Amino acid sequence: MLSFESDYVEGAHEQILRRLAETNLEQLSGYGCDPYCESAKKKIREACGCPGADIYFLVGGTQTNLTVIDGLLAPYEGVIAAESGHVSVHEAGAIEYTGHKVLTLPQHQGKIHADELETYLRTFWEDENHEHMVYPGMVYISHPTEYGTLYSRAELENLSAICEAHQIPLYMDGARLGYGLMSRQTDVTLFDVARCCHAFYIGGTKVGALCGEAVVFPRRSAPKHFLTIIKQHGALLAKGRLLGIQFDALFTDDLYFKISRHAIDMAEFLKKGLRECGIHFHLESPTNQQFVLFRDEDLDRLKKHAALSFWEKPDEDHTIVRLATSWATKEADILTFIKILKEIL
Amino acid sequence: MLSFESDYVEGAHEQILRRLAETNLEQLSGYGCDPYCESAKKKIREACGCPGADIYFLVGGTQTNLTVIDGLLAPYEGVIAAESGHVSVHEAGAIEYTGHKVLTLPQHQGKIHADELETYLRTFWEDENHEHMVYPGMVYISHPTEYGTLYSRAELENLSAICEAHQIPLYMDGARLGYGLMSRQTDVTLFDVARCCHAFYIGGTKVGALCGEAVVFPRRSAPKHFLTIIKQHGALLAKGRLLGIQFDALFTDDLYFKISRHAIDMAEFLKKGLRECGIHFHLESPTNQQFVLFRDEDLDRLKKHAALSFWEKPDEDHTIVRLATSWATKEADILTFIKILKEIL
Amino acid sequence: MLSFESDYVEGAHEQILRRLAETNLEQLSGYGCDPYCESAKKKIREACGCPGADIYFLVGGTQTNLTVIDGLLAPYEGVIAAESGHVSVHEAGAIEYTGHKVLTLPQHQGKIHADELETYLRTFWEDENHEHMVYPGMVYISHPTEYGTLYSRAELENLSAICEAHQIPLYMDGARLGYGLMSRQTDVTLFDVARCCHAFYIGGTKVGALCGEAVVFPRRSAPKHFLTIIKQHGALLAKGRLLGIQFDALFTDDLYFKISRHAIDMAEFLKKGLRECGIHFHLESPTNQQFVLFRDEDLDRLKKHAALSFWEKPDEDHTIVRLATSWATKEADILTFIKILKEIL
Amino acid sequence: MLSFESDYVEGAHEQILRRLAETNLEQLSGYGCDPYCESAKKKIREACGCPGADIYFLVGGTQTNLTVIDGLLAPYEGVIAAESGHVSVHEAGAIEYTGHKVLTLPQHQGKIHADELETYLRTFWEDENHEHMVYPGMVYISHPTEYGTLYSRAELENLSAICEAHQIPLYMDGARLGYGLMSRQTDVTLFDVARCCHAFYIGGTKVGALCGEAVVFPRRSAPKHFLTIIKQHGALLAKGRLLGIQFDALFTDDLYFKISRHAIDMAEFLKKGLRECGIHFHLESPTNQQFVLFRDEDLDRLKKHAALSFWEKPDEDHTIVRLATSWATKEADILTFIKILKEIL
Repeated sequence: MLSFESDYVEGAHEQILRRLAETNLEQLSGYGCDPYCESAKKKIREACGCPGADIYFLVGGTQTNLTVIDGLLAPYEGVIAAESGHVSVHEAGAIEYTGHKVLTLPQHQGKIHADELETYLRTFWEDENHEHMVYPGMVYISHPTEYGTLYSRAELENLSAICEAHQIPLYMDGARLGYGLMSRQTDVTLFDVARCCHAFYIGGTKVGALCGEAVVFPRRSAPKHFLTIIKQHGALLAKGRLLGIQFDALFTDDLYFKISRHAIDMAEFLKKGLRECGIHFHLESPTNQQFVLFRDEDLDRLKKHAALSFWEKPDEDHTIVRLATSWATKEADILTFIKILKEIL
Repeated sequence: MLSFESDYVEGAHEQILRRLAETNLEQLSGYGCDPYCESAKKKIREACGCPGADIYFLVGGTQTNLTVIDGLLAPYEGVIAAESGHVSVHEAGAIEYTGHKVLTLPQHQGKIHADELETYLRTFWEDENHEHMVYPGMVYISHPTEYGTLYSRAELENLSAICEAHQIPLYMDGARLGYGLMSRQTDVTLFDVARCCHAFYIGGTKVGALCGEAVVFPRRSAPKHFLTIIKQHGALLAKGRLLGIQFDALFTDDLYFKISRHAIDMAEFLKKGLRECGIHFHLESPTNQQFVLFRDEDLDRLKKHAALSFWEKPDEDHTIVRLATSWATKEADILTFIKILKEIL
Repeated sequence: MLSFESDYVEGAHEQILRRLAETNLEQLSGYGCDPYCESAKKKIREACGCPGADIYFLVGGTQTNLTVIDGLLAPYEGVIAAESGHVSVHEAGAIEYTGHKVLTLPQHQGKIHADELETYLRTFWEDENHEHMVYPGMVYISHPTEYGTLYSRAELENLSAICEAHQIPLYMDGARLGYGLMSRQTDVTLFDVARCCHAFYIGGTKVGALCGEAVVFPRRSAPKHFLTIIKQHGALLAKGRLLGIQFDALFTDDLYFKISRHAIDMAEFLKKGLRECGIHFHLESPTNQQFVLFRDEDLDRLKKHAALSFWEKPDEDHTIVRLATSWATKEADILTFIKILKEIL
Repeated sequence: MLSFESDYVEGAHEQILRRLAETNLEQLSGYGCDPYCESAKKKIREACGCPGADIYFLVGGTQTNLTVIDGLLAPYEGVIAAESGHVSVHEAGAIEYTGHKVLTLPQHQGKIHADELETYLRTFWEDENHEHMVYPGMVYISHPTEYGTLYSRAELENLSAICEAHQIPLYMDGARLGYGLMSRQTDVTLFDVARCCHAFYIGGTKVGALCGEAVVFPRRSAPKHFLTIIKQHGALLAKGRLLGIQFDALFTDDLYFKISRHAIDMAEFLKKGLRECGIHFHLESPTNQQFVLFRDEDLDRLKKHAALSFWEKPDEDHTIVRLATSWATKEADILTFIKILKEIL
């Protein structure tokens, strides 16, 4: 059975497992106060070009989003996000659970448009009743988005400038940041991300780690007492080493980028195969997630051979599914998959 | 200076003030345990045709919405509402503050459509990822809506049937319920409201009281320990008599309905005058709030004579404003207003 | 039937009712933007000796406490209070509902001791694990306390100095502030309160108003966008005039102080009568609440004639009850009560 | 440098690392829907003697406490705990953050007493004002406690019976449950725990895992939609396998119990050495944490050789420290430690 179900179906990159084993019996202090966390932070600061960045390691994506967003917002503020943003739809109301509204903008292939953001903010402040409304307190974007799409550097800079002008933070959910940075069709570097964002996280869970996300505040502007806020949200890992060692491995010898590039290469290879089969792409994704349309009868047969993710049903007879590659995807599996697909169609 | 700014620009109906004065020095227990609260509940139960209804008196609308909604929802549930619903837009995120998401449906002149509700609910349960999403736990409607429009009895019954089928409560925000029930263009009675809704409130603040809203659970289904929930939300009034006496007066000799009818009559009179002036109505409202379009230069002149509420700007040169009549509106004021308007145009 | 059950068994002082009636049909803007709110604020600022104070009117005590405390605390902070403080025990967990812990100190006749506060704060910061604990973010005191007792000016100044040194706000719950200020045994003036506290509220509900509490930030230090925070907590009254007119009346011609003094005079008269009957006082209260011990069999007979409040049972055969006087207490009722008591004993 | 700082200073038991490596490239579904989670649950159900138990895997202790407690409580309820309980003191207010009060009872070497619990509950319900108070909605105990002490089977049964009588859940924080069960001085088995508790968790983080806690609802009584509640609290791990594989290893061939027993043996060995040195024990702990008193000057010298945890300062010249053994403690290290200690004293 093949699986393109997601980019978290395997365990961890072997280099991570090796480092966990090698360091296993060292006696280290807890809660992130160990030399591996320090080393990982140092390497991430270098990779971001931000020698003074505040960095924290959390365990998972929703947890990171809720903790950072709640930490950055004033109590009367909400977070602006695309209506298709992960925080808007697929986090079980975790943001609202912290007391904050998700203020939605239209999504354009998963992205928000700078002009619509600008209009939203201007309209809010002009509204005579805005004291009775939720203040827009920050902007959330995901990069890559939930549809695998990417902001261009110019788009990022525009969003950043608008946030700057309105003095609200721009926060990037980088659950799949590696796959975004290593896309063949991006002009955005990690330096750009660090320059444009007030806060962002570098996703580990979906890019080779067992778990873990690295939150970066490039301008040294972590919320006050953020460690306590992390603890209060149940997000402080006792054995912080588990996160430190993994990120230290990922940011040694560019491992994070190399394995991300592998996933991109596999995605391009998969796309080529799918195109040869005449498969319809729901949208053009330059990263590791591909959204394609199948006839339901074809899909039923395909599912006997490969696990895919249901995305949505555009009509009675068709289904859009997601196929994800990852750091662990094997070229041979893609060949097999395309071969099966050709037989089915 | 005239005012059509809102339906809460005056104090209270004189009959309410009289009863407050007459009972003023009676020594009564606090927190709603007084004979006037009891009497008011009895009269409201009769007016609703629900001898067993649970009834609670709260102070204001947002407070009532947040307390009832938080009381009815499970922690993992959100409330479905029109995107223009008061809880969606103009309560400063009070619902999210209690930890719950407002799940929005498109608004059609302030109303939600039964078929869109049905689709939303069905789609949610069919979605393979729904465990990662906010469960739709109840439906919020306002009647009259924020645009002054009304559900028909058939529409209410449809919404009620859908909620019933999905076993979630239908809750009606009746901040202006009196004006809805006394409209010349409605087939909905208070009995219908009580039959169709799991919970609703009868608005006092905007219908002749100094403050106060009466929450009704027609099927005796108030959340367990609701008094404590009210207290926990800071919504329990020490001198509960203030609410009991007012609602007792409002539901004596049909006062609530009579003064609501007066507001409707005044609204019809105002509409007639506006039509004579050729004023464009933004939409057709059968209740006490009218939304009309002015050229900005006309509006500027008008505002020297009368207070109106800004609603929205459809374009550079025009503004939509709200004109509200109420239990206290004087026919003479409308005549004067129309006269001024004619001079301006 | 007599009642000494509480200081909120009657309606409002007649002067308040008169002003409500006189202003009833004036058309005023909502949400506190009316001239009566402005006038009341001006008079309160003068009474406090703080020309620049931020002032907000809320409806009730628990609501005020939760809104102010949540507004002043950072998310990772809690509020220090006596273990007998109203916020600790009798507000149904309203403070915790806003996400904040109540950090308790021992109570000494309802008061906290400066040295215990100092020790608590010092110990917290010295604790190597304090990042895993709730930060003490402000101090709550009630004055008079829940036991009717009062801080001396020196005690207030001490608490204020400690808070100043630790840079945390001192907040006073003045639900019965008038009765505290008019006690025959206090050296604390309203000027002292305003000088020592970062925030406090002047209670209306228990001192002659139908409802309403006036929150004062003497140093112009209301939380940013506090109106929106009030709205978000369901605490913003549409007809703000109801609060403005009442406080305007209370702070005209020293009415607030005169009626508070009356309650004190009645309390002293009651105490004298109780002492003549040989009644045991649970503690010495210099304000309008008296806590006395009855044999249960005496109490049972007494309750046929007068309503009292149960406080606690020190043993099988005795009960401590509270007797409260108020702005509305009649001398004749006290005479009758003492007469009945003498017959019973 | 030796370390007895805590029981989470090493990584994971080698058997866990081995299984993580062996299964690493298997493609598994996320969020706990993998065969290793299923297998681990099966084995835990057997170990608990509860074939129908609901089991969920979470990442850490505070996270587990806040999610389970919030899941079990009604909104108006709080959790009863010892004043020294982890949820009371060392979780940064995580419980209050979910909106619930921690209702404290006196601690007796970390434990609560059944009679004090009974009195608390009875007094609450008898209090005429209890509708204005926080309802006691569940009981939290830790076993071993924060002081390493243990409830006897009879004590557990007593607490369980009281909870049963009051129809509130008994919840056990088993962060170090293995060390409690394997103590030489306990009559409590895992079967007893499952029989007496409505919910409990089997700690992994401190007993050999990299991270992870297994929540058990022995009576199939997990809160409705608990997976969504977990997600909403940011506690759902994408790669659920990380937890499943670890607990599957821990509950294979009694590994969990064997390594817990090792820690106990090491603790007994350490205690013997400390006694030989005449060290004063702050209290008698039958588990892996020992609390002992040092003169500060001795401690300063000792700290150059071994890491210990500060606990508290009973006076100017002494300090109580915690020494913890674990599954990973080496006998040789204890010998060295005692040798150093003898030299210092």
